[in-house]
Amino acid sequence: KVLWTVLVTMLGYSSSLPVGEDALCTAEELAKYRIIFTGKWSQTAFPKQYPLYRPPAQWSSLLGVTHSSDYSMWKKNEYASNGVRDFAEKGEAWALMKEIEEAGEKIQSVHGIFSAPAISSGTGQTSTELEVHPRHPLVSFVVRIVPSPDWFVGIDSLDLCEGDHWMDEVSVDLFPYDAGTDSGFTFSSPNFATIPQDTVTEITCSSPSHPANSFYYPKLKILPPIAQVTMVKIKKSQLGLSAPFINLPAKSNEIIDTVS
Amino acid sequence: KVLWTVLVTMLGYSSSLPVGEDALCTAEELAKYRIIFTGKWSQTAFPKQYPLYRPPAQWSSLLGVTHSSDYSMWKKNEYASNGVRDFAEKGEAWALMKEIEEAGEKIQSVHGIFSAPAISSGTGQTSTELEVHPRHPLVSFVVRIVPSPDWFVGIDSLDLCEGDHWMDEVSVDLFPYDAGTDSGFTFSSPNFATIPQDTVTEITCSSPSHPANSFYYPKLKILPPIAQVTMVKIKKSQLGLSAPFINLPAKSNEIIDTVS
Repeated sequence: KVLWTVLVTMLGYSSSLPVGEDALCTAEELAKYRIIFTGKWSQTAFPKQYPLYRPPAQWSSLLGVTHSSDYSMWKKNEYASNGVRDFAEKGEAWALMKEIEEAGEKIQSVHGIFSAPAISSGTGQTSTELEVHPRHPLVSFVVRIVPSPDWFVGIDSLDLCEGDHWMDEVSVDLFPYDAGTDSGFTFSSPNFATIPQDTVTEITCSSPSHPANSFYYPKLKILPPIAQVTMVKIKKSQLGLSAPFINLPAKSNEIIDTVS
Repeated sequence: KVLWTVLVTMLGYSSSLPVGEDALCTAEELAKYRIIFTGKWSQTAFPKQYPLYRPPAQWSSLLGVTHSSDYSMWKKNEYASNGVRDFAEKGEAWALMKEIEEAGEKIQSVHGIFSAPAISSGTGQTSTELEVHPRHPLVSFVVRIVPSPDWFVGIDSLDLCEGDHWMDEVSVDLFPYDAGTDSGFTFSSPNFATIPQDTVTEITCSSPSHPANSFYYPKLKILPPIAQVTMVKIKKSQLGLSAPFINLPAKSNEIIDTVS
């Protein structure tokens, strides 16, 4: 069942990406979603060099944006912006917030910014609400992997609109990316700027193909997902503090089923 | 001029606290504010034991709530909730978000939760938007001081409503508090639970009265503010990505005028 969910959501994700042209969104005016980010970075699933001290494995604040296809927060195989670099390397959000704001002012490609609190361990959850608009139906976000040179997880331009309606629920498994701005190989590598800057690349169990890399697991075919994100549409009757919260456990790490 | 602003805002803050009874808010339906948090924790202003490495001085995510006087996130001289303890000690927001959500469900004392990204240095800024309602005109938030045993800065029940209108702008200097749950004396003290738990207390330059304390400056009368928060009402024409952003500098630490 897990595999099925993943396949469906990944297919949904890929097919909804605006490639070249926008899918027309004719949905009702606005929609609100609760977004729940779940860290799955456990020592069981990722035993190699798992950071235990100063700092232990954890996640930065989540910083996201709802936007049109005229804006892109980050994109695989393209160069990271200065804002994404600062966020991926240091968790510093300000430059990225300024970039988003400028895109909102100049080309009206942005509807809103959202953020959710950091998670102080590798496995845990955080959550906030976001709002999408028919002209700004795409969601992007980044969460820095802490500690790491410039590694992050995130979503690039996920379309929550399907023709004339908003999706009820979307769930996506997340895998690590390298922002291409720091050449460190391991979680706790010292800073070492990549000059010239490289593009954003996905980190897999075989790439970078070097035994020193923290995610290099030559016996695996694919890495287990290091995180997951779920977006649940908030029904109008639930606006304000909303029902999607209710099904969550009291402690954020109770529902973690480690993929090992 | 700086002193004048501080006095005015502090007076405004004190007089607007609901003590015992609620001031009736008859303002228009809703108001949105941009909240800007500025860290002023520089080595110049706070030279003693200033944390430079693993981790250097920084601020956690900001977690806040808009509410009625039936809810209290934290209060000086009262015991911190488990959620505030987890946040103040570890920056873990989940338990506190659950507490807020439960207050929202059970006694409808909460309008909404907001959060802003962490700041990766002692001096820097972060920002988000919040919404208040005539029945929920109070703002509370917490930001953890990192590293520290259980120290935080924040606001407790600041009333943004003045009779029939919403305040245009409020600015408050922030000083450190001890959550009363960890007995560490210095920024980098190891964990040492306070049993029985103590109440939330303000940390001043003379209290705790012990030379080992990181904020103990016997030659000062008062500590310089370690942070500042400003809330600016967003005019309806500015809703969405809004003008209050425009006056902020490109780099978050350019406007820091260190109090030394």
